[in-house]
Amino acid sequence: MSRIGIFDSGVGGLTVQRTILDRLPGADTIYLGDTARVPYGTKSAETVTQYSLRNARVLARTGIDLLVVACNTASAVALPSLRTALDVPVLGVVEPGARVAVKATRSGRIGVIGTQGTIASGAYQTEIHRLRPDAEVLALACPLFVPLAEEGWTDPDDEIVRGIARRYLAPLAGAIDVLVLGCTHYPLLRGAIQAELPGVALVDSAEAIAAEIGERLPANGIARPATHRWLVTDLPERFLPVARRFLGREVLSAEHVDV
Amino acid sequence: MSRIGIFDSGVGGLTVQRTILDRLPGADTIYLGDTARVPYGTKSAETVTQYSLRNARVLARTGIDLLVVACNTASAVALPSLRTALDVPVLGVVEPGARVAVKATRSGRIGVIGTQGTIASGAYQTEIHRLRPDAEVLALACPLFVPLAEEGWTDPDDEIVRGIARRYLAPLAGAIDVLVLGCTHYPLLRGAIQAELPGVALVDSAEAIAAEIGERLPANGIARPATHRWLVTDLPERFLPVARRFLGREVLSAEHVDV
Repeated sequence: MSRIGIFDSGVGGLTVQRTILDRLPGADTIYLGDTARVPYGTKSAETVTQYSLRNARVLARTGIDLLVVACNTASAVALPSLRTALDVPVLGVVEPGARVAVKATRSGRIGVIGTQGTIASGAYQTEIHRLRPDAEVLALACPLFVPLAEEGWTDPDDEIVRGIARRYLAPLAGAIDVLVLGCTHYPLLRGAIQAELPGVALVDSAEAIAAEIGERLPANGIARPATHRWLVTDLPERFLPVARRFLGREVLSAEHVDV
Repeated sequence: MSRIGIFDSGVGGLTVQRTILDRLPGADTIYLGDTARVPYGTKSAETVTQYSLRNARVLARTGIDLLVVACNTASAVALPSLRTALDVPVLGVVEPGARVAVKATRSGRIGVIGTQGTIASGAYQTEIHRLRPDAEVLALACPLFVPLAEEGWTDPDDEIVRGIARRYLAPLAGAIDVLVLGCTHYPLLRGAIQAELPGVALVDSAEAIAAEIGERLPANGIARPATHRWLVTDLPERFLPVARRFLGREVLSAEHVDV
């Protein structure tokens, strides 16, 4: 039985955990949401790296076989430091997302949307170019998408949601055939994003990383029901109701940790 | 020469510092923006109190005569703890804002808008009722206003800005004659807010607290040019360009501190 540690700046990474639970029902998971310091996407690479190392150490102490960095911003800026600091394999969402995008594109023109931190890091752009040097990458930060998703304003028929999506995505219309949703909150806005970019294939990094984890972990039958734990740095009470929306199932309890 | 310490979760409190610089040109100021942990408005009272105490201790060590809590969320939840922990007077923005609102209202029906943390705390509601027991207070959280202001989308003619303002403020239209802007970011959206609530007097807590500080500090002539310092917990480079917009003048340098 493998035990997967997952961390994110807050609740967004639960979409990654959700995919892991669906695809790898035999694996135990432990999720840490750094809800006291969320969001990471507007903060500097140095600060995000410092927080990521603290999160990873808390998870490592619980005994894990693999660490999944579910936060795109942390994946974009902190992966080398995390790999140096930890004894277990560390997977970020950027590499799997880039790989799926490169496979999916026909035109070679790929869009990437994410937080300011993710886009400024150039991590997706670098990884896509490594895999396909002639790819043309259009990368854009969409800072209002995270607060929109957290507010629950995600209906593609909502004129405010559509208006914001249109303003951010207009430079991509007609210019790309694949778009990487480079932030774990963005799949909640998939409807509005797709409506602005009809015919464009959307790459969800949660889906991309789950496939990769499946390859890394030993195949095993389900000997006993898997166990799952949730740790948060702000109050657990505030986490539980939102967590349900992102995870797609009830989170019965979460424990507070200081990191 | 008095020395005023000011802290906020990020850049918003610079609107308070701006008013202090305008009204009290003889006072030295030192500003701490907790940019590595911003925002406070979505976090629990316990976490906000813990961060506030750390900020206050850093400022206290530099030698201050008065501490101004420029963040509405911190003022709403952390003031009693701060007053216990510090040897100097501590002023928050909630009491002055409530006082100005109660003076300004004729109908006794007062609106308050703020972050989730500020509104959930009930601090404005309590303070207004203490000053005027028969007041009717309508309090609403507007979570998207902070990211809108930080994105620089503040033009009252922008249909997205107006649409968001309309959705949040509709319950207040025709129901109040005074509205407290209970978050330091909100004055940047004053145009859109006023357009949705014509005839309603808007109370800016930055204005309210500056008047109160003037009463607390000894009047003094300007013996020498006042000095001002800025401390931030994330990278200074990211703070400087945004700071200019909020402070209305150049911030030439900011120092990084760990709190």
